[in-house]
Amino acid sequence: MHNNIPDLENKNPLFLCVIATTKTARIPGITGAGATPELTDYTPAADAELIVHGEARCLPDIPQTVIEGTASPTPAVITKASLELADIPFLTADAGAAVKPNLTFFDINQIPGENIQSGQAVVNSKKIFNRGKFLGKILSQFTDHLVIGESTPAGTTTALGVLTAMGYDGNFKVSGSMPENPHNLKLKVVSDGLKAAGIKAGDLAHDPLKAVEVVGDPMIPAVAGVAAGAEVPVILAGGTQMTAVCAVVKEMEKDYNWDELSIATTIFVAKDETSDINYISKQIADYPIFAVDPQFEKCENQGLKNYINGSVKEGVGAGGAMMTALLKGVTVEEIRLKTEEFCREIFE
Amino acid sequence: MHNNIPDLENKNPLFLCVIATTKTARIPGITGAGATPELTDYTPAADAELIVHGEARCLPDIPQTVIEGTASPTPAVITKASLELADIPFLTADAGAAVKPNLTFFDINQIPGENIQSGQAVVNSKKIFNRGKFLGKILSQFTDHLVIGESTPAGTTTALGVLTAMGYDGNFKVSGSMPENPHNLKLKVVSDGLKAAGIKAGDLAHDPLKAVEVVGDPMIPAVAGVAAGAEVPVILAGGTQMTAVCAVVKEMEKDYNWDELSIATTIFVAKDETSDINYISKQIADYPIFAVDPQFEKCENQGLKNYINGSVKEGVGAGGAMMTALLKGVTVEEIRLKTEEFCREIFE
Repeated sequence: MHNNIPDLENKNPLFLCVIATTKTARIPGITGAGATPELTDYTPAADAELIVHGEARCLPDIPQTVIEGTASPTPAVITKASLELADIPFLTADAGAAVKPNLTFFDINQIPGENIQSGQAVVNSKKIFNRGKFLGKILSQFTDHLVIGESTPAGTTTALGVLTAMGYDGNFKVSGSMPENPHNLKLKVVSDGLKAAGIKAGDLAHDPLKAVEVVGDPMIPAVAGVAAGAEVPVILAGGTQMTAVCAVVKEMEKDYNWDELSIATTIFVAKDETSDINYISKQIADYPIFAVDPQFEKCENQGLKNYINGSVKEGVGAGGAMMTALLKGVTVEEIRLKTEEFCREIFE
Repeated sequence: MHNNIPDLENKNPLFLCVIATTKTARIPGITGAGATPELTDYTPAADAELIVHGEARCLPDIPQTVIEGTASPTPAVITKASLELADIPFLTADAGAAVKPNLTFFDINQIPGENIQSGQAVVNSKKIFNRGKFLGKILSQFTDHLVIGESTPAGTTTALGVLTAMGYDGNFKVSGSMPENPHNLKLKVVSDGLKAAGIKAGDLAHDPLKAVEVVGDPMIPAVAGVAAGAEVPVILAGGTQMTAVCAVVKEMEKDYNWDELSIATTIFVAKDETSDINYISKQIADYPIFAVDPQFEKCENQGLKNYINGSVKEGVGAGGAMMTALLKGVTVEEIRLKTEEFCREIFE
């Protein structure tokens, strides 16, 4: 593993949030990113709207993860706090969200993912990858440091699908948005999908876009494309989902310069005992993984405190947004206080 | 009229092309921006693709205006030459094109315009304006000088519609893409639309978005929104269509700072004896109009020479792209030679 932070200080970062939904997220118990399975269709659009408008316009309630009666706010509040404190531009790209956000976004792909149990998860993953690549090139004209986050409910399950199809071992190692990580359900769902497609683990080691089509989600090829097309350093802002992105990049771009890429996530993913981002990453490539601790134990907000117990953990690029803000001189305490302030304004 | 070029030298401009189509363009004889009325649906997407990919991917043939057997190339080649010589970033926004370009673009609105003879031309012009405004704010973070072009077949007719509904006199004054400007047809089409909607000229002086809904096109509120939302100087890169944009901006943004806006077009519009951009503009606001002469009389390419006789004249922000390139030190001769080179590569 790397120990050095890439030369990202004093740069002008740009934060891109790639959103998508899938019918996989409708499987009961698979994700906490939505109060009901049906509401997961709204979560990514609501996250983007919350960051831009300070409110979710596409639905009456803001995404929260409800665990035993206490709602934990979407990590979008952390992202919003970090980007605003550090004055970092925020752009949204649609990789296939069922509900579109009420704001102006880049159109990469409009069609959401299906339930991967069908073995036919994503249509046109090559187009999505190429559109992403084009966007990465475009955005490189406006920034010297591209931070890519995502909002994709049930995204760790679809990430597990892609990793497995490509021959990586992600079993019991992908993260999740709930304290109790439903690994057996995730494994069964992935296994169902591979079976339906007549594919065995590892069969698609050299066909990552096929792996996405069979058991992935539209966010993965989109973010992989943006990273592959970028001509500036890239931070993948997310947890174990981003390892599937790296697996796709590795296979699609044989000459990819891994010194230009890192993953940044939250301490809640890094310290998660129900998952292991390092274990997965080591199988793929040598890129650094940074983890930021927002010290939510100091929070008054119970919903944010729940993050410490494994609720939510990461999403909407929260970890990468914090890291990028820290690199611009913002302090952890400022981020935490601003996050609490947004929670009061938005949820109370 | 102003005489001074705004302080735009040594800036980092960004070129945004806003595309849209309408069923108005299907009216036989109204536009030259497409070999047949049906092909006008492809023209804006093909223009954007030509600039980005060097070829139109959405249709087998590149947009050309055919006059008496000689095809004149789309002005997108001038825009492409100018932007590449001056290394100016190019972005596309969809305001409602029937055919979507094969590249990554901003989604402002997906629904094309209807035939304005119905008196129901555009749905949701307020949403389009607001989305444009949001985009203007976003883009201002990445540039200090925003150049906005458009590709909207039959756009001078829909511009005439909006101007007329708002009480401006554009009769026999809007430009056109053919040497013979079909003013009487344009007047009849606008008159049909106003009649169908039960609206008289000037009735919508203070309701520009309604004027767009009745007899406009989706590009107009989109570009007006981008201009209104921009926090940097704006060049509207186009001919008389841009005066309708200015009329909308004036009414929507009472405090608009007109010192920050100019129109830049080609000499072919400025010297056009079948139209009068100055006459229309003087009724609206005091903004400068710049005209660039690419000296196509020196061309070997007959299609480009046809521009001098009134074929095409302007479009895809050709005039504004040239002006922005000139401000960055490119010469007219370089632009002309590069344009001829692209014509050889693309059309021969």
